[in-house]
Amino acid sequence: MAAKKEPVTRIAKSDATSVFVGGRDLVNDLIGKYSYTDMLYFLTCGRKPSTQEVRILDACLVTLMEHGFTPSAVITRLMIDSVPEEPQVAIASGLLAIGSVFAGTTEQCAALLLDMKKRIDAGEKDVVKQIAVSHAQSKQPVPGFGHGTHKPDDPRAVRLLEFAKSEGMDGPYVKLLLELAKEVDAAFGRHITINATGAIGAMLLEIQVPVDAIRGFSAVSRAGGLVGHILEEKRTPSARAMWNASKAAVPYQDPEPKG
Amino acid sequence: MAAKKEPVTRIAKSDATSVFVGGRDLVNDLIGKYSYTDMLYFLTCGRKPSTQEVRILDACLVTLMEHGFTPSAVITRLMIDSVPEEPQVAIASGLLAIGSVFAGTTEQCAALLLDMKKRIDAGEKDVVKQIAVSHAQSKQPVPGFGHGTHKPDDPRAVRLLEFAKSEGMDGPYVKLLLELAKEVDAAFGRHITINATGAIGAMLLEIQVPVDAIRGFSAVSRAGGLVGHILEEKRTPSARAMWNASKAAVPYQDPEPKG
Amino acid sequence: MAAKKEPVTRIAKSDATSVFVGGRDLVNDLIGKYSYTDMLYFLTCGRKPSTQEVRILDACLVTLMEHGFTPSAVITRLMIDSVPEEPQVAIASGLLAIGSVFAGTTEQCAALLLDMKKRIDAGEKDVVKQIAVSHAQSKQPVPGFGHGTHKPDDPRAVRLLEFAKSEGMDGPYVKLLLELAKEVDAAFGRHITINATGAIGAMLLEIQVPVDAIRGFSAVSRAGGLVGHILEEKRTPSARAMWNASKAAVPYQDPEPKG
Amino acid sequence: MAAKKEPVTRIAKSDATSVFVGGRDLVNDLIGKYSYTDMLYFLTCGRKPSTQEVRILDACLVTLMEHGFTPSAVITRLMIDSVPEEPQVAIASGLLAIGSVFAGTTEQCAALLLDMKKRIDAGEKDVVKQIAVSHAQSKQPVPGFGHGTHKPDDPRAVRLLEFAKSEGMDGPYVKLLLELAKEVDAAFGRHITINATGAIGAMLLEIQVPVDAIRGFSAVSRAGGLVGHILEEKRTPSARAMWNASKAAVPYQDPEPKG
Repeated sequence: MAAKKEPVTRIAKSDATSVFVGGRDLVNDLIGKYSYTDMLYFLTCGRKPSTQEVRILDACLVTLMEHGFTPSAVITRLMIDSVPEEPQVAIASGLLAIGSVFAGTTEQCAALLLDMKKRIDAGEKDVVKQIAVSHAQSKQPVPGFGHGTHKPDDPRAVRLLEFAKSEGMDGPYVKLLLELAKEVDAAFGRHITINATGAIGAMLLEIQVPVDAIRGFSAVSRAGGLVGHILEEKRTPSARAMWNASKAAVPYQDPEPKG
Repeated sequence: MAAKKEPVTRIAKSDATSVFVGGRDLVNDLIGKYSYTDMLYFLTCGRKPSTQEVRILDACLVTLMEHGFTPSAVITRLMIDSVPEEPQVAIASGLLAIGSVFAGTTEQCAALLLDMKKRIDAGEKDVVKQIAVSHAQSKQPVPGFGHGTHKPDDPRAVRLLEFAKSEGMDGPYVKLLLELAKEVDAAFGRHITINATGAIGAMLLEIQVPVDAIRGFSAVSRAGGLVGHILEEKRTPSARAMWNASKAAVPYQDPEPKG
Repeated sequence: MAAKKEPVTRIAKSDATSVFVGGRDLVNDLIGKYSYTDMLYFLTCGRKPSTQEVRILDACLVTLMEHGFTPSAVITRLMIDSVPEEPQVAIASGLLAIGSVFAGTTEQCAALLLDMKKRIDAGEKDVVKQIAVSHAQSKQPVPGFGHGTHKPDDPRAVRLLEFAKSEGMDGPYVKLLLELAKEVDAAFGRHITINATGAIGAMLLEIQVPVDAIRGFSAVSRAGGLVGHILEEKRTPSARAMWNASKAAVPYQDPEPKG
Repeated sequence: MAAKKEPVTRIAKSDATSVFVGGRDLVNDLIGKYSYTDMLYFLTCGRKPSTQEVRILDACLVTLMEHGFTPSAVITRLMIDSVPEEPQVAIASGLLAIGSVFAGTTEQCAALLLDMKKRIDAGEKDVVKQIAVSHAQSKQPVPGFGHGTHKPDDPRAVRLLEFAKSEGMDGPYVKLLLELAKEVDAAFGRHITINATGAIGAMLLEIQVPVDAIRGFSAVSRAGGLVGHILEEKRTPSARAMWNASKAAVPYQDPEPKG
């Protein structure tokens, strides 16, 4: 039986006159020297990112920040109308929606790519095809594929993958994603686009972001966009119009009598 | 009576093959060209920031990302232990705590500075002194002043204000904050440090961030730090130790009989 | 200077074979003997409620549980569509909206009644009229008054106040609310209904619920209703229709160029 | 392919002078006539519960309301200290923690019992034993079994199951749970208690609560308890002591250099 790990933190320490973060002096080594993106990478990967890693990470974060009235944005708008004093509540409630269905799928796609790579590295054959076929047979969407609006291709994914290539960051995970895309089209018998969350999942793996940080990165990205929605709601309110439209969209019927 | 504003959004539009954000083509104009910090500024202030504005914003965001086991971090740690499948829930719950007591005070300090400047610009006399004295008399903390750990000065605030000066960004709000600091010391009869949230409130005003975005920026900043706490909790768990310590810290007493 | 209170809890203790809550044996004295409503009262007021207190509390809780697609219900519906695995997240996100604008106004009305009573008991004259007039002059809504749908009267408030009377529970706070209603109509120059949250605020004071529990009671009440919304969303989904309608309700305009 | 369901709601309708909930007149048929527990059942099961169903539901709800400083209570206490103006935020954040690890396990136990019953009804043999053995072999905890504090038996579960029997409500799900308990002890080679969430999962199935309402019921139950924690925190604060204890419980170590 493995020894139980003692609780310990390596994140930060502070005293009356100093703050250390990740082993560095916040005041002298980080403030004014690290960008937000540098610091996000540093806090999750344990080192300062290279210039190319920063460029990839920024591209991924910028992509997911804003896509108009996503469910997270609608929730944030309704919330700031209900609790106008607390913008952090509006942001947090929007972020709660970054789960398995919407932008949180970055994580599921990355997990799938990691699993595929592991099986291939272990010598297993036809892994990519098998994954595609098994999803097609069970009619399950493949994480990182398909989009309700963007057809035939998600332009964000196309751009991100080009950008990864132009930066020389189209390593094994990007290649696996592209291979998977071919097999998905074949197995489903039609073209299904790689979407933005798929490209981001692969690219964050390329820059060595741990898979269990990836959904968090989606949340960080979207958090920035939600601040913009709060400002717009305060200037030109839409929440009441969305609320009224929501009510009007769902007709009432009497329930069937029971019991 | 003012005409009621029609609901409208200027944030984003998308169709099958394109996404526009803030009037720009996301794919061709923003991805790969804007950093996260550029984009955050763009989405809230409506234009690309200057190089100096970015440097100030990054300095502010980096400062608040991490300060060890703040209440928001403790909450995030407990939450990821309770709901391990949903990192966005752990992040969101930590962000809910960015309110009037902790890091959300950036907003209150900025609001105070705006109000002071408005009164001074309108010709009112002794505004700064009055603010300090009235807080001292009512024994109310001045937003952006004082810190439980950092004494006599919050090293983050010192560094941030030096940085603002070195960037030539120590305009009217920074100067007002420094003036307020002198009056606060005089009125309270002892030195009370400008804290990090005070310096950030002033500096975000200098770069023209709207006051109602400022608490949101604190949330965005902290969101990045909380991803790091989730990763550490997954690698070397502390939540159970913190839970046990919390229980042990609060002894039980029988209630007095009633009714 | 007052002695700092030592942290202590009187709520619950447990060991290997027993659980005590509020000083009583959970297993032998409460389970099977207390209703949910009894227990809610016991945990917040420190004693078992009388039969009449339970009837009043149940009437108040039942009233706020459900009112169709309120903002809290819309948020819960969008959330269970986004994070289908975690019903508690959908409930919690709906409850976040129980603030100063919607159902949380029970608390503000109760606070106003308490303040009025205190001033009257201290011998102040014309308190009720003053409150009404000052709100009318500043065009501020009076907490617990007015409703977007229910006109001329909120039928829930009418019924609740009749019920309070029939139970002999129309004491000083209910009477003050009725007196305030008259002055509000006079001051505003038109009839403004007491709404459900107004009646509930007064009635919870009558049964000695502390004012700082009252918004919590609104949340408890609504929590039950939100479970019903989750079930309906799982059986006959509406969230996507509400999302689409929300998007359609807010037209896009290009932003004005800036910077 | 099944026809896509049109969005429709059967929950509530209202107009200027009336509110209907579940097809009944809220004002005339429900307020003053239904208890909170009646209404919760009505909104989720579509009919008024019988007297025995109410007694079972109340016993289940009362059991989970309070268990001292659970993670949900600690989170609520920290949150009301950070955002003292918004009790609904403190309640909601505590409820977010009712997931797969703590009180949300009522749902997982109920789902397991439903699955077992289905397989047995379909003629499968040795289902209960298989479940127990497969969990033991994979060293996975059985949902609804085991407790950190309560040993050898969770007194709440013992009492709840006795109560179900005394009410004549110990039907197939309770019996399956008891059978499973025997097989669990045999498979694991030691006694593992049925815990409160296990008993509740079985008993809510007995009264025909849908499985996808069960975690919601845990949240409703706990919501009531959290109001009590908010009140105690306002009267005799513990959050700061818990925060300090949490920090002290996790020593800092410098990170290993990297990159």
